[in-house]
Amino acid sequence: MELRQKIFDFLKDPIYQPEHYLSIADFRALTRERFARFAAAHFFTITDYVDNPRRFLAALECLAWADYSLAILSGVHYTLCGGTITKLGSAAQVAAHVPAMDVGRLRGCFGMTELGHGSDVAGIRTRASYDAATREFVLTTPDDDASKYWIGGAAGTAHICAVFAQLEVAGREEGVHVFLVPLRDEAGRPHPGVRTADCGAKMGLNGVDNGQIWLDDVRVPREAMLSRLATVSPEGRYSSALPDRGARFGATVGGLTMGRVLIAGAAVTASAIGLTVAINYAHARPQFGDTLIGDYLTHQRRLYPALAATYALHFALDRVKALLAAPPTPARAKAIHVASSGLKAAASWARIRCLQDCRECCGGQGFAAANRIGPLLNDMNVDATFEGDNTVLMQQGAAAELALGGVLTRAGAESLRGLVNDLCRRLGEDRGAAARTLCAGFGCPDHLMWAPIARDWTTAFKYPGKA
Amino acid sequence: MELRQKIFDFLKDPIYQPEHYLSIADFRALTRERFARFAAAHFFTITDYVDNPRRFLAALECLAWADYSLAILSGVHYTLCGGTITKLGSAAQVAAHVPAMDVGRLRGCFGMTELGHGSDVAGIRTRASYDAATREFVLTTPDDDASKYWIGGAAGTAHICAVFAQLEVAGREEGVHVFLVPLRDEAGRPHPGVRTADCGAKMGLNGVDNGQIWLDDVRVPREAMLSRLATVSPEGRYSSALPDRGARFGATVGGLTMGRVLIAGAAVTASAIGLTVAINYAHARPQFGDTLIGDYLTHQRRLYPALAATYALHFALDRVKALLAAPPTPARAKAIHVASSGLKAAASWARIRCLQDCRECCGGQGFAAANRIGPLLNDMNVDATFEGDNTVLMQQGAAAELALGGVLTRAGAESLRGLVNDLCRRLGEDRGAAARTLCAGFGCPDHLMWAPIARDWTTAFKYPGKA
Repeated sequence: MELRQKIFDFLKDPIYQPEHYLSIADFRALTRERFARFAAAHFFTITDYVDNPRRFLAALECLAWADYSLAILSGVHYTLCGGTITKLGSAAQVAAHVPAMDVGRLRGCFGMTELGHGSDVAGIRTRASYDAATREFVLTTPDDDASKYWIGGAAGTAHICAVFAQLEVAGREEGVHVFLVPLRDEAGRPHPGVRTADCGAKMGLNGVDNGQIWLDDVRVPREAMLSRLATVSPEGRYSSALPDRGARFGATVGGLTMGRVLIAGAAVTASAIGLTVAINYAHARPQFGDTLIGDYLTHQRRLYPALAATYALHFALDRVKALLAAPPTPARAKAIHVASSGLKAAASWARIRCLQDCRECCGGQGFAAANRIGPLLNDMNVDATFEGDNTVLMQQGAAAELALGGVLTRAGAESLRGLVNDLCRRLGEDRGAAARTLCAGFGCPDHLMWAPIARDWTTAFKYPGKA
Repeated sequence: MELRQKIFDFLKDPIYQPEHYLSIADFRALTRERFARFAAAHFFTITDYVDNPRRFLAALECLAWADYSLAILSGVHYTLCGGTITKLGSAAQVAAHVPAMDVGRLRGCFGMTELGHGSDVAGIRTRASYDAATREFVLTTPDDDASKYWIGGAAGTAHICAVFAQLEVAGREEGVHVFLVPLRDEAGRPHPGVRTADCGAKMGLNGVDNGQIWLDDVRVPREAMLSRLATVSPEGRYSSALPDRGARFGATVGGLTMGRVLIAGAAVTASAIGLTVAINYAHARPQFGDTLIGDYLTHQRRLYPALAATYALHFALDRVKALLAAPPTPARAKAIHVASSGLKAAASWARIRCLQDCRECCGGQGFAAANRIGPLLNDMNVDATFEGDNTVLMQQGAAAELALGGVLTRAGAESLRGLVNDLCRRLGEDRGAAARTLCAGFGCPDHLMWAPIARDWTTAFKYPGKA
């Protein structure tokens, strides 16, 4: 809580004020500068990913309130790259990279997706062959289909990349492992054998420079393979603490879990911002005489269910965070995986519907960039398919729930019932006041109470209506 | 058909190629230049609005294929401003403005919406008082709430504005009438008494400079009031061919009908572009081995119903265009009003769902600006609330349909049944081939056959997959 307050105070620096007028080149430069200042302030350390996940999540969640490009560039650096090093790297590998990454001196990206392989991570085709003679791994992109694609920060920002590749040792395939590969030096000069290209303009999130990476027989030392789960000896002998290939693959790609929790959290944040704007506007804007638009049933039927859903998702997410903070057990790990995947999909789809309703309920004001709903719709649209396609995640989640006999669903429904009843009662008493109070933080231990920040940054409330 | 081909050939000029990297200032300048060149080519005349509405619609519909900012800036100029002059102006007023507007030498905008009055047009508060001594109207914005707001082109582009204001003659209120008010001269210098402001950045459509207008006792000659339906004599005597106030108001704001047909048409166009990209991608992109993503049921269930809906909306829209082209009768006018309002809402909401599904079905490629789906989602989001809020339009349409006993719905269902049966049969035979054929133009007399243009302008098809 104190950390959040510190970060929100920090984000009051004018450089973090919304900026909607820039060219893509200028917006990327601004985003990198915003990231640099945030990192330099060093509010947390990447090893919190393992040691204090609540702290790690709290710090990064704050960024989505300011700008989603900043949140994603930071998420790729801290969570996907840094978190993977922390979780899959040896103590020496963590010590070698985390201090410089913590303050943004070393910037990382995350090379999992390939042009030809999005959902099918096990099918990636980047190769890493061990050369015992030189004690190096040789990383190769066999063709364009296997080039790394959509890699956030790869076009220009990142110095290193956590590259997922098929390991081959002494002629034997050992499956997907992670290698730290230098992309460019501090001056931006490419590392020998590394080629990158720019993925170009997007429908949003244009502060992030997504890029494509080809590795042309790039040689990295033996120490570049993250070695907590598996090692290759200098002579070229492979060994792993997880001899089961399926379990090893699951642990290797497990770094997405925290990212999914952050995406779900950002979806709740964005819904809270949108609802705060839309509900306050609804209770300030008259139309057809003195009737406030919030008094029309059509308006209420769009905004209040979305408000309830946002609270429900917030509390569901809080359960997942509690699981993350508890001592790890295999059953807990399974529950975390299923719940974070399902919640990422549920929250991001709910967020799309919610913000679209908020946008329409504000009329032209919802389309104006200054009121933030529209830019959030643009920037966050990516969340339905990145770090796991929602359709695929929902199928995984449903299959796992069926296998578990519906345990998670029942527990979730139980804990939400009291909340929903209370919400309904309050809405029945004095709708306008209750809705405003809800937005301002009722019943919510931390997240939605930051709504006043959204208020500071919008112009919808400056509408000079009668109310 | 020939006109469309001419315009599509014209739009191959590189200046009309998609541009996603610019600052807002530069994109506005580009949009104005695109508009200037299109207008100078003089493909049609504004009086086609009345004399040849199919021609008028065909010409303007082409622009949505190129860029929606261009389509909207042009739509405001030709349809809302020019069409209103053509429909509500005297022959002399048409002759005085249309030739210069036709070629873009005189640029117009449309001052209906006020900050405090969106859906409630009858409640606008801009005043126009007749001063018999000088034979002028005096136009006044009483307060900020009554300033004209979201006026496309008002921040810098337009020279004149068709201002909707409450007419007062000799102390008597005569209701809403339209006045042609100069905003700025050719050099951009504001007309005395006119103040404008910029509505700022938006979530899309940033090539259009939406603005706010205040009129501080602006004096315009008696000839500035559009006088086909009502006139004020030099001495200050009001008379109208439509003495019934309700009928007069309906005729005065009726200029939105053509705009709604164009919005519905653009929604069909955008859905066609999105589906062309997504369906072709689905049948070219393998994932998890050789299975094409288009072979997954989850994929088919999202794209094919949207394809069917797009065809259905296309044919429904064609019915409305046939009504518009037929000799006007009161019953036809009523049907056109109801159908164009309902279709605008139905088509734009269907378009939002359709493009969102297309975007997700293309994964990251759907988020890339080059593949057009994302920018269309951003630019067109406005269509759910402009020229009539969808929720309000749907209620109007439903009420009218109930009053008519469901005539329109039954006729529409009848004419669609054969089409849907045929679609289903073809999809059952060879899904991939049929879907591609459908996109390329099956059964559709004109609209969807322009899909090859969308193809030329996307990179999704350049995906180097196996198929």
